[in-house]
Amino acid sequence: MAAAPITIESADDPRIAEFRAIRERDLTGRQNRFIAEGTVVLRMLAEAHATRRGFEAEKILLLRNRAEGVAAILARVPDDVPVYVAEADVLDGIVGFHLHRGVLALGRRIPGSENLLDSLAERALVLVGCGISNHDNAGSMFRNAAAFNADAIFLDETSCDPLYRKAMRVSVGSVLSVPYQRSSSALDILIALTERGFDIWTLSPRGKTDIRAIKPSDRMALVVGTEGDGLPEAVLARFKSARIPQSVRLDSLNVATATGIALFAMASAADRL
Amino acid sequence: MAAAPITIESADDPRIAEFRAIRERDLTGRQNRFIAEGTVVLRMLAEAHATRRGFEAEKILLLRNRAEGVAAILARVPDDVPVYVAEADVLDGIVGFHLHRGVLALGRRIPGSENLLDSLAERALVLVGCGISNHDNAGSMFRNAAAFNADAIFLDETSCDPLYRKAMRVSVGSVLSVPYQRSSSALDILIALTERGFDIWTLSPRGKTDIRAIKPSDRMALVVGTEGDGLPEAVLARFKSARIPQSVRLDSLNVATATGIALFAMASAADRL
Repeated sequence: MAAAPITIESADDPRIAEFRAIRERDLTGRQNRFIAEGTVVLRMLAEAHATRRGFEAEKILLLRNRAEGVAAILARVPDDVPVYVAEADVLDGIVGFHLHRGVLALGRRIPGSENLLDSLAERALVLVGCGISNHDNAGSMFRNAAAFNADAIFLDETSCDPLYRKAMRVSVGSVLSVPYQRSSSALDILIALTERGFDIWTLSPRGKTDIRAIKPSDRMALVVGTEGDGLPEAVLARFKSARIPQSVRLDSLNVATATGIALFAMASAADRL
Repeated sequence: MAAAPITIESADDPRIAEFRAIRERDLTGRQNRFIAEGTVVLRMLAEAHATRRGFEAEKILLLRNRAEGVAAILARVPDDVPVYVAEADVLDGIVGFHLHRGVLALGRRIPGSENLLDSLAERALVLVGCGISNHDNAGSMFRNAAAFNADAIFLDETSCDPLYRKAMRVSVGSVLSVPYQRSSSALDILIALTERGFDIWTLSPRGKTDIRAIKPSDRMALVVGTEGDGLPEAVLARFKSARIPQSVRLDSLNVATATGIALFAMASAADRL
């Protein structure tokens, strides 16, 4: 059960300093902290916290008239997590714009002790992102991975941190539910996956195999790059490649949509949907 | 061949007034005018203008050092279309932010005299959007329609105008290449399509037929609604429905991704890809 709400009357109150001007700055990179927005994401954060799945809520800030609506969610949050409430003018003063949803939390990721690579099931579908620097695209990849039951996401170190506010929001909280790891180079990730029996499928407009015709296997990895540059040659040259057939007029689909289509095709091929 | 470039030295110059503070206001709704940004969209606008496909460039504004790079595109633009160039500080002063791409045009849509409904081919795949008010989603729908060779898009009157700056940008200019019409209610559009022999497939997380199992026909329409509210009951009750199989944990895919997956599945079923 959450703590009794504490009223905040000034945007300068130091207790809610982390929520100040959230559009202009971003807490990520500072001790794995992030901002969760909206009821759906708050619910996922509360569940992850309650079930010790790698994330904790540190503090919650609500528009006063939203507190009752999220009471059931707050009931899942331990009572050492402070809950602050504010009127609309104070809340807007804190965050720096009109926050019509009125539900915010400061969360923290707790890096796991186990190795994600070695914790994957015998039958697994994973997504690997290379150079995904756009926060929207990173968030969409998590949302798609959750929709099609992917088991994990691996991001190379040139991809953005999915804890960024916009990525988290676009993922509709899926960053909190799909296990992920962000480190090293795409090539190192793919070699490690290969060593663990994964069939690697890079996605590219010039891929050799029609995505509708790839041969399913127990362990499959889909690898996607940025829209502009695509995947590095060192990656494309070394692994099997797949393409989504499409109009010759257009360069390529948006990476989020392409990832969704390819994951859907692979999950279908593997009889996972 | 385009006109000789005219140098703009002040952000207050009335000749480039339409480009002023483009983020804050939007020209759309005013005589079907719109802002085209970037080299790719400028090229599509120039082609549409040169080949009289429903769009005209009215004026072009370039960062001076970008003019040479788009010379081949400008060569396709008639010489009564003025081309303005400005240094970076002047250009940023005009648009109100740092415009790193440095390529802008003011375009105009010329409503066609022919009826889009009656101009469709015997074999056709069309997309119908209902209540697509988000500019990103509208733009993505055009991009996906272009990628999978859809023949036309019909938007109901509650959907946003795809000429909006952000929709145009996200579509990567596909708003200029995929024929569309925005008018009346979704139900009226669907009745008109039915009368013309179209099989109507509404897309919903609770749709009856797995999207991978729909029976192809010569004329097919895919109908998508907003993420939150979905399609109105009056529409869902009257037509066949399809679903994209997905995790039970998640409410639904982003409408842009869902549209991409469904169009891909339908174009595949109809052997169009």
